[in-house]
Parts: sequence; structure tokens; C-alpha cells
Amino acid sequence: MKTYRIALLPGDGIGRDVTDAAWAVLEKTAGSGGFSLEATRYPWSCDYYLENGSMMPADGIETLKSFDAILLGAVGWPRKVPDSVSLHGLLLPIRKAFVQYANIRPHRLLPGVQGPLRSDGFDILCIRENTEGEYSGAGGRIHQGADNEVAIETAIFTRKGVERILRFGFEQARARRGKLASVTKSNAQKYSMVFWDEITHGLSAEYPDVEVTSYHIDAMAARMVMAPESLDVVAASNLFGDILTDLGAAIQGGLGFAASANINPDRSAPSMFEPVHGSAPDIAHLGIANPIAAIWSGAMMLEHLGETAAAEKVMDAIETTTARGVGAIPGKDRTDAITASVLSALG
Amino acid sequence: MKTYRIALLPGDGIGRDVTDAAWAVLEKTAGSGGFSLEATRYPWSCDYYLENGSMMPADGIETLKSFDAILLGAVGWPRKVPDSVSLHGLLLPIRKAFVQYANIRPHRLLPGVQGPLRSDGFDILCIRENTEGEYSGAGGRIHQGADNEVAIETAIFTRKGVERILRFGFEQARARRGKLASVTKSNAQKYSMVFWDEITHGLSAEYPDVEVTSYHIDAMAARMVMAPESLDVVAASNLFGDILTDLGAAIQGGLGFAASANINPDRSAPSMFEPVHGSAPDIAHLGIANPIAAIWSGAMMLEHLGETAAAEKVMDAIETTTARGVGAIPGKDRTDAITASVLSALG
Ligand SMILES: CC(C)[C@H](C(=O)O)[C@@H](O)C(=O)O
Ligand SMILES: CC(C)[C@H](C(=O)O)[C@@H](O)C(=O)O
Repeated sequence: MKTYRIALLPGDGIGRDVTDAAWAVLEKTAGSGGFSLEATRYPWSCDYYLENGSMMPADGIETLKSFDAILLGAVGWPRKVPDSVSLHGLLLPIRKAFVQYANIRPHRLLPGVQGPLRSDGFDILCIRENTEGEYSGAGGRIHQGADNEVAIETAIFTRKGVERILRFGFEQARARRGKLASVTKSNAQKYSMVFWDEITHGLSAEYPDVEVTSYHIDAMAARMVMAPESLDVVAASNLFGDILTDLGAAIQGGLGFAASANINPDRSAPSMFEPVHGSAPDIAHLGIANPIAAIWSGAMMLEHLGETAAAEKVMDAIETTTARGVGAIPGKDRTDAITASVLSALG
Repeated sequence: MKTYRIALLPGDGIGRDVTDAAWAVLEKTAGSGGFSLEATRYPWSCDYYLENGSMMPADGIETLKSFDAILLGAVGWPRKVPDSVSLHGLLLPIRKAFVQYANIRPHRLLPGVQGPLRSDGFDILCIRENTEGEYSGAGGRIHQGADNEVAIETAIFTRKGVERILRFGFEQARARRGKLASVTKSNAQKYSMVFWDEITHGLSAEYPDVEVTSYHIDAMAARMVMAPESLDVVAASNLFGDILTDLGAAIQGGLGFAASANINPDRSAPSMFEPVHGSAPDIAHLGIANPIAAIWSGAMMLEHLGETAAAEKVMDAIETTTARGVGAIPGKDRTDAITASVLSALG
């Protein structure tokens, strides 16, 4: 029997609640799916930082390297550790070290979920560049505190980085409805975004079966609200993808429903699966976090591991659950009631 | 009788249609308002570029300087002139040369207009920094075309630039419902956005009557869709403001309803008023563009000139018109029918 070794990083706040829920569902799926899952749990988090002075041990990345996948809850607890420390100490280094350059986020309404839009017929896959661009961390400040102080932040885009994410976007479009939207702001950012547009244009010749359209980020934000049904695959830079996927989460009914995968498409290192939502310290451990996004992220992990049938079973169980009205209304059901409903729907 | 000298820049495409409409309304308002408006029209546009090799004459800025205000339609016609040329040759230089550092955009539903959200009780004023930040135009490319090509784009924030826009935001919040949302992404952009957060925090002591909250741009995009009624004044950088105001236009029913003002609060140079929408070449001169956004921008101009009663009259006439269903449904009514209805509502 095939065994997958999974690193569990529940992290902070509700990250722990939802990771437990997702794991319960994944384990049950494995039992009936002819494969097994073996979890190793790491307590890396803001609490860990307060005890140890770092978000993970110095050999943390090395430790994670041998796993088949990583399942993460959420990172951050600003009142304990500033976000700029916690995120740059755990979440972001993993994405970069393991070259998880494709951050994939599906946006569609689960049955029974009412979103904020009047429109409900959309099915969007956002592909966010995950390793460079506007979140390169390059920049600085001069004359700190003086009236001539200047802060700069430099977005760095490499041909390799842009080409690989766009190629990934074209492939995903090919496997779906054949439409790719490439998002830039080339009318106002004439170096980075013109570069991105040129690469999109260059690659389009290799994918004649994919219909590719370039949008400005402002127009795309409006389109996701005015005409989301017109979109299929949306590829964007680190920052633009970050913004569009929170917007995607919003139109699908809220962050409790938004799943994500940080994929290393070359499989040279483990990929990481995590709900889009944060650690929500204010409701941590009250047992009221919605685990659907985390469970859906778990289904994306099964898919990535090649356990497609099991992944579909989990998605079916999620949809049966929300169609019954359980977990469909933010704040209504408790974490364990939603989890129990998904488990029972698994049969 | 007080006379205001207005520079009209209809620009490209539907910019011309809607500027004519707005001007007709403004002239009528002036007639009954005890002041007069004197227009000087400049044909600066992409057509002008094709004839003259530049978007405006070399002394264009100098020419505009003596006016009391500028009313602009829209700039750009990508099939004639690339956006990076037309916008950097006309719209953006005016904003910068005249230190129109506050780009103000109101987002609320006009009566009779159905937006894409189920929610309709919101009234948001977005304040966008309009002169620096992510649209500074600083950057470059190396190894062009080679596989090690790198493009960089540098966002530049100055203390003066950030302080003045935030101060403007605090003042606007004070004059409205007392709530200011300051938008950054300081968990991922640790130079520019941490700088912005610090300045927000520093200024808040001077405005104890204003309740200020910092949001990340991704969370704010979601909030504008999930809970727009929770927002009052939203202050953001050039890029973030650009994105949020298109999103604001979307939730208020579309770009046909989104007005904007590029304000020089020190009045050391003219301010400029323009609808948020672009030139929409595909529907240029068909007589079907919605002039409401341009007329509303004209009302903001009257307000800025100190003609508050006249500004209110125009807003009332717009609201009477859309409440009657005229101009309320995108694509339904012709430009001249909507304009005629606003004119008749003016009485
Ligand atoms: C927490 C933050 C750094 C992170 C990001 O921007 O990548 C989050 O917003 C996300 O979308 O995963
Ligand atoms: C056309 C473009 C350069 C402009 C901008 O980004 O400023 C527009 O999007 C706007 O919002 O006024």
C-alpha cells in the first residue's frame, strides 16, 4: 500500500482547529482509498517563536524537504509577533525555498452557499506567481524620521520566473475551458508589466488552442465583480494574485470557503496546501472556524499526490455537506459539526 | 458676476461624447446660479498625436496653468497610440505637474441603479495618492530577450507625499462619518508599506476624533464586496487606490457611474475632474456612452470652485434622472436622452 508522508503545520490560531478537521477527513479517505497517510506534526508558530526566538528551527526547511506534501493551517498572531516577522519566518520562506512558484486558488460557489453577488454562475481558477515580483523584499529607507525621508520597494521579475508561471497558466487553461486572462498594469508600470505582457504574447504562439487576453489589474478587479462568469483561468503576479484571490474568496462567499495550493510543478520539493484565510486570533480555539477551506485544500493535496479518486470523494463530501446547509452560512455551524457532516458524507 | 475659466480636454473616444454632455449641464447650472463658466477647448488626444507627434504641445502644461479648473473626458486609443505613450503624454503629466495629489472617488449607488452586490447601503469615499508610489515610473530592464533577463519597477514613497495624502484623508473623514481606513500590504512589503503605516499611526494622534484602521489591500478588496457599508473614507497608494476605485465603480453599478476629481488641495495650480472610465474606442461616437460619471465629475468641479449650491443642484438632477430609470441601466439609454433628462431635472 502506498504511504504518503505529510508534514502538518497547524501554525497559529484557527489554523490548528481547521488542520485537525482536514486531517480527520483525509485520514478517513485514505482508509477507504487504498493508500495511507502518515502525519508528522510540527508546532512552528508564533508561540514557538516566543519560546525559541524563531518561527522554525534553523534546519526547518531541511526537515520538511523529505515529505511528500505539507498541510498548513495559518501563520500569524500580530499581538504576539509582528506579521512581518512571523510570515517572513515561516510561510514565505517555505514557498520560496521549495520553489512553489504556482499558487493556485479555485473560486466558485459551493452548493447552498450564498455569495455577496447577485451572479452565481462562475468558476475561476486563479494562478498567482508565488516567489518574486512585488514581494521580493528588496528595498530600503533613507533619512528615517526626517522630512525628506524616502522609502522604496522594488518589484523584481525574472524571465524564468514569469515564463514558468505563465506556462503553468496556459497549461491549466488548456485543461479547463481554454481561456487565460493575464493581468498586468502595463499602462502605468512600464518596466515590470510590459515585460510580463511581452512574455504572455510570446508564449501565446505555443498555445494556439488557448484564448489569451490581457487585462489591467483595476479592470480585472471590476470584472470579477461585474462579470465573473466570463473568466476561466486568471494568471497574475504575486501582489495582483494576492489581491484577486481575496476578492475571489469574497465572491465565493467568504474566506471560509477559499482553498489554495502552493505548487512546485517540477516536483523537485514538496508542495504546500493551505486555506487562504489567516489565523483569526479573535476566534481561535472557540471551535467556530469553518474548516471547509482547509478540507478543500486537503483535496487539492490528494489531487497533487495523484489520488484523484480520493480527491473527488472529498470534494463530493464537501458539496453534499454545504448543499445540506451545513457550513454554508458563515458563523452558523461549529467546526466539529461541519467536520462530522463531511465525514458522514464520505460514507 | 463671477466667471470661472475652464479648460476642456475631451480627449479620445467617448471622452468627447461625455464632455459635451457634462458641459451642457454645467452651463445651464451656471446660468441660473449667478456665476458664469467660460470654456476653452483643447483637442489634445491620440488623433492630435498622430498629426503632431505629441499628445499636447510643448507648452501644454503652461497653457493649462492659468485656468480655474480642467474638465477631462478620457485619454487613450491603443490601436492609434500605445497607452504607455498617450497616458504618459497627457493624463499623468497633468496630475503630477499640478500636484493634484489627491484623487477622490465617491462610491455609492444612485437611486434606481442596481449594482452587482446584494448589499446596497454603502457610501464610500476613496482617496487615492496620485503623484508617486508604485506609478513613479522608476525601473529598468537588463539582458533584454535573454534567459537571464530581469525587469525591476521601483515604488518610491516620500514622507511629504504620504503625509499630505493621509492628512487629506483624515480631514475628509472628519467632514464625513469620522472613519478612515488606511490601506497597505505591510506584511509583505516591509519598506514602503511599513513606512505608510508608521505615518498613519503618527498622524492619528492629531486627529483623535477620527477612528483610523489599517487594512491589507487584499482584505480591503474583499471587504468592499462583503461589507461595503462598514467603510467611510478609504485612503490608499496610487496603485492600491487605482484598484480599489475600479472595484468601487463596479459595486456602484459600473464605470458609467464613477466620478473622480484630481485635487490640488493647496490650490497652487488647477485641479482636474474626469470620469473614472476610459475612452472605450469600441463605442466612440455612437451616442451610447453614459454621461452620468462625467456630469457627476462636473458637480465635483463646482464644489471645488466653491459653488456648493450649484453642485448640489447637479447631483439632485442626476439622482432625479436615475430614479426615473433614465441612465440607470447600462446600455439602455442614449447619451443625449440621459443628458436631456438631467437638463430637464435641473428645472
Ligand atoms: C499573509 C500574507 C503574507 C499572504 C500573502 O500575501 O501571500 C496571504 O495574504 C496570502 O494570500 O497567502
Ligand atoms: C489610465 C490609467 C493610467 C489610469 C490610472 O491608473 O491612473 C486609470 O486607470 C485611472 O484610474 O485613472
